[in-house]
This record gives sequence, structure tokens and C-alpha cells, in this order.
Amino acid sequence: MSEQINAIGFYKGLAIEDPNSLRNLKIDRPKASGNDLLVEVKAVSVNPVDTKMRQSHPETKNPTVLGFDAYGVVAEVGDQVTNFKTGDHVFYAGTNNRAGSDQEFQLVDARIVAHAPNKISLEEAAAMPLTSLTAWETLFDRMPLIPKENANSGKEVLIINGAGGVGSIAIQLAKWAGLKVITTASRPETIEWVKKMGADVVLDYHQSLSDQLKAVGIETVKYAAIFQSTDAYLPILAKIVAPEGFITSIVENAHPLPMGLLKAKSITFAWEFMFTKSIFHTDDMATQGQILAKIAELLDNKQLRSTLTLTLTGINADSLRRAHEQVESNKMIGKVVVTGNFNAK
Amino acid sequence: MSEQINAIGFYKGLAIEDPNSLRNLKIDRPKASGNDLLVEVKAVSVNPVDTKMRQSHPETKNPTVLGFDAYGVVAEVGDQVTNFKTGDHVFYAGTNNRAGSDQEFQLVDARIVAHAPNKISLEEAAAMPLTSLTAWETLFDRMPLIPKENANSGKEVLIINGAGGVGSIAIQLAKWAGLKVITTASRPETIEWVKKMGADVVLDYHQSLSDQLKAVGIETVKYAAIFQSTDAYLPILAKIVAPEGFITSIVENAHPLPMGLLKAKSITFAWEFMFTKSIFHTDDMATQGQILAKIAELLDNKQLRSTLTLTLTGINADSLRRAHEQVESNKMIGKVVVTGNFNAK
Repeated sequence: MSEQINAIGFYKGLAIEDPNSLRNLKIDRPKASGNDLLVEVKAVSVNPVDTKMRQSHPETKNPTVLGFDAYGVVAEVGDQVTNFKTGDHVFYAGTNNRAGSDQEFQLVDARIVAHAPNKISLEEAAAMPLTSLTAWETLFDRMPLIPKENANSGKEVLIINGAGGVGSIAIQLAKWAGLKVITTASRPETIEWVKKMGADVVLDYHQSLSDQLKAVGIETVKYAAIFQSTDAYLPILAKIVAPEGFITSIVENAHPLPMGLLKAKSITFAWEFMFTKSIFHTDDMATQGQILAKIAELLDNKQLRSTLTLTLTGINADSLRRAHEQVESNKMIGKVVVTGNFNAK
Repeated sequence: MSEQINAIGFYKGLAIEDPNSLRNLKIDRPKASGNDLLVEVKAVSVNPVDTKMRQSHPETKNPTVLGFDAYGVVAEVGDQVTNFKTGDHVFYAGTNNRAGSDQEFQLVDARIVAHAPNKISLEEAAAMPLTSLTAWETLFDRMPLIPKENANSGKEVLIINGAGGVGSIAIQLAKWAGLKVITTASRPETIEWVKKMGADVVLDYHQSLSDQLKAVGIETVKYAAIFQSTDAYLPILAKIVAPEGFITSIVENAHPLPMGLLKAKSITFAWEFMFTKSIFHTDDMATQGQILAKIAELLDNKQLRSTLTLTLTGINADSLRRAHEQVESNKMIGKVVVTGNFNAK
């Protein structure tokens, strides 16, 4: 009989108040083969993708295990793995078509994993992978910006929703890369937060963005990233983005989009979906491991700061339900991490 | 009193059968200043943009002069112009917010003009600027392909509507740049034409494109250009284009677009509108002069062939109405050029 491990999962999408929305489970311990690592998970984070996947999930016979951010220690390596060994400390987001990090031992493809930063806490590290990968790919894969310190000076980026998980890293990475950063925020605490992340100009999203830009002498911006309602912001950005400019979004549209608004200016619209590389096993899948290695370096050099703001102890259904609740509130600033022992009750 | 010149224009959008849809007019001869050249026009072409602008035009007091392709001789240079002199033979598309080439003497910004090719006829040259600029910008400005001979080998592009004006040049430029070219055509004469242009694989657009691709061993393509109905082809390309692939379109959507279909693959969608650079006076506006200079070189070296298929003689309202009729028929293969004297009757 195979060894059992602790995991947190569910059989059906339920409201987070329901105790069955996330349950303590026992599952078989997986075994590493091929390109996989088996990682003993020490800390996980919760992202909007977790809550969305949970809420919309049909009833299934086998449990679904979420979790797309982890810090852990390599317990086994597959026979194709060359750059990791047992005992290495790693961090990664993983992919959304395999079981996630809410389990004691998780299989993850070594190509999308990096050695963890070692000058920050494991909780600070666990908060970072998914949002860092998304922010990096938004700026440097989907738009023609250069992923190098101060390499884009004289350019500017408008980040819609700078206080969110991805926005907070995008501001920091854009500043590191030399861009001027304009972002949106509205509450006093989010305005303070985005300034701490490095934003140069903060716009109130309850007022006209173009009027506020004109007031600070900016007519158009060449690069824009949408981290909130593409439906709402596409028409607004059609006016603000410069001819031959770029818009990248991570938020799926609810309705068909009036793309013709972008045509006269020959604007490019790109989607960024962080799981594309791992779902489709693209030729450049290993760039995710490389990006995370660079993120670890920037964190250790204090050129990037962790966005961790809340730590819950004990990786179990209770704490993960609390973490999901925080994310669902839409009021969260920064990231929540759940750490400590898997102590399923 | 200023000198009068011949021009062909109209005061109101009318069906092409109406003799007033394009009329012989006398207008004031313009004078060159600043960055402008005044060019004595020797040949013009007609593109779909002419017929669309004519058809949708409201009634106006002053006449509208169309024409966005010309071969001519420089008659005057503005005081800011450094790279052209009186007597130079030039070719250009011009821009759609100034009077077009359907006049004896036309003002055009020197930054979007090039010296004409000299080893082909003036009619062959006049057929080329608008479609060449559009095809070049589609491939090399809006998608990350390299505008250099054989520089993209191992890559492939799918060109929707290869037999049209822009498609015919896009096929040739893509082949020159080393790409494998897949295109759509359906009638025997268009299939023959796109093969002559260099297409490697021809798909019948009345059948499933993905089934036909699979039959020749192609699962996905990384680059796709839409030169016909974006509304019809976006959902089809969502299935065919590879993860992290690129779609560029020159055809404005009639309805909002289901862009969410592109999200899981992180696909980029770019608009190409050839007049963006000149309308907005972008920083890279002069690249249009540079692209046309390269096109002239490729034409003279026989690396690119003119798409001229029909020449009408006598630049006047009768011949231009015939040329518009040809373009409106949607059956045109290649380009129509009107040349000879302006002999308004």
C-alpha cells in the first residue's frame, strides 16, 4: 500500500464559508520521474486563480488540490533532471493542469522551478512566484521592453491596478528596468502601497485617467498593462495609449471587445496567461525557471521586495479557507502566505 | 491668380456608376514648404482604401482628391528637405489626411517617399507603395520577424487572402525573409497567382483550414496575417495559431471580437494601419521612406516582383472610375495602375 500524505482539496465548488469548500485529505505520496521534482512543501500562497478555480469547479469523484505558489525542499528528482538535487531549497508557481502546492509532497516540472532566494524568509519567498512570473512576462515577453536594469529609460508604462498581487511586482520590475511608472489606486492605503512599490505617478481610477495624465504633462503612454477589468479599461486605454503602442492584459474579457478602437493607432493587444508555457510545453517553457532565478537574485540583492503582508501558520483546511477569504475580499493589499506543518485534523 | 492644375475628385460619396462619383476638376497648384515635396504625378494606383473612402464620404463644399499610390517627378522641394532634389523620380503612398495622388501636382512629406526603382516600368512601380508598406509593417513592425533576407528560416506564416493586393506582397516578402508561407485562395486563377508569388502551401478557404493544415503535417503556426474579414478569421485562427503566437490584421472588425479565445495561449493581436505613422507623425515616420527604398532595391534586384496586372491610360475621371470599379468587384488579382497625361475633359 502506498504511503499517504496530507493535502487540502475539495470535490465541488462551494462558498468559502462552507467547511467542505476546502477539506483536509489523505492522498497517495507521488513519485518523481522524468523532468519532475518531488518537493516537500514548506509554505504556499493563495492567488485569485485559486479562488476562481475553486468557485467554478464542477463536482468530481477525485479531489482537486489547488495552490500555485510554493517554497519547499527537493525530496526526489526524476531521471531527466540535471539542475537540482535532493535537499535543494526551491520556489515555483507550478501549473494549473496538475495538482497544486496545497499538499505535503508535490510533483513539479524542474524547468519551471528555481533555487529559492536565501536572504529572505521562506514565507517572503513563497509569496512571489506566480505574481513575479506574470508581471515579468507581461512586461518583457508580451511587450518589447528589455529585462535588464535601467535598460528602458525614457519609456513609461501605465499599470492598471498597481496595488494588486501582480501590479505590485510589475511596478517594481518596471522601475528596476528603468521605466517611469504610472499606476492607478484610489484608497489611501493602496496609494501609499503603490508608492512604496516605486510608482512615480498615481492616478485615481474614479476620475478621468486622461485628464489626470494631462495635468502632469503626459499626453500618451506607449506601454500599458491591464491587471483589472479588460472590458472597462480597453476603451479608456484606446485614448491614452500612443500610436504603435502596446496593451497587455491578464484579465479575461466578460464580453466581446471593441477592438476597432485600437486600429487607427496600430496598437498591439497581447494576452498574458502565466500557465501558457507549462500547459502547452512551449519551446521556451524553461524560461520560467530562468525568470524565477532572476527574481531570487533581485530579492536577495534587495532590488525587489516581497509583497508578503499576511502569514497564517499551519497548512490545513482552516488556514487555507481563511486565506481564500482574504483573496476573495478584493481588499487584500499584497500577498497571504500559509506556512508551517501540514497538520490535517 | 494662382495657377490651375488638373485633379480628379468628388463632393459626395456616390455609386461608381454615377458620373459624379469621380469628376475632372481644376484646383490650385500647391507650393512645397517645410518637409514637403511637390511631385508631378505620372502614374497612380487604386486600392480598397480609395473605394471605401469614396463610398462613405459625406457631402462637402470642397472636393476630395483620393489616390494613395504614385510614381512621379519632384517639381519643388520644401526648405527642410535634404534627401531629394527637383527632377528626382520618386514613388510613395502618401497619407489619408491630405489630398491624394489623383492630381497633377501633389504635396507629400519627403519622409514617406523614396527614390523610385529604375529597372522596372513606372507603372510597375506605381502599383507597389501602399501594399508594400502595409505588408512590410504587418510582418516586420507588428510581429517580431526580421526584415532581412533568409533571416527567419524555420518559421512559418499563415497569410489569409494571399491573392489580394497586400497578400501578394506579403507572400513575396515573407519568402524573401526565409519564412515558409501558407496562404488561402480558392479559385484556380488565384491559386495559380499565389503560387507565382511564392506560396509554399495553399489552403482552400471554403474548407476547414485546420484539417487542411493537419493533412500536410502542420498542427499550429506561430505567425498569422489577416487580410480579409477579421470577424470571420479570428475564431479560426484562435485554434490554429501556436501558444505565444502572433496575429496581425489590417481589416477592421464589424462587431466586437471574442478576444478571450486567444487568452489561454497568450496570443498577441496587433493592428496594422499603414497611415498611422503619417497621421500621427510618429517618431518612426521616416521608416516609411526607408521601407520604400528597400522595396525599390528588391524590385530592381528582381527579389520582388510588381503586382501590376492592369494598366489604364489617361489619368482622368473615366479611367479612375473604371479602376475603382475593378477594385470594388473584389475579383481583382494584382493591381490596377492609371498612367499617362492628366487630360481632364
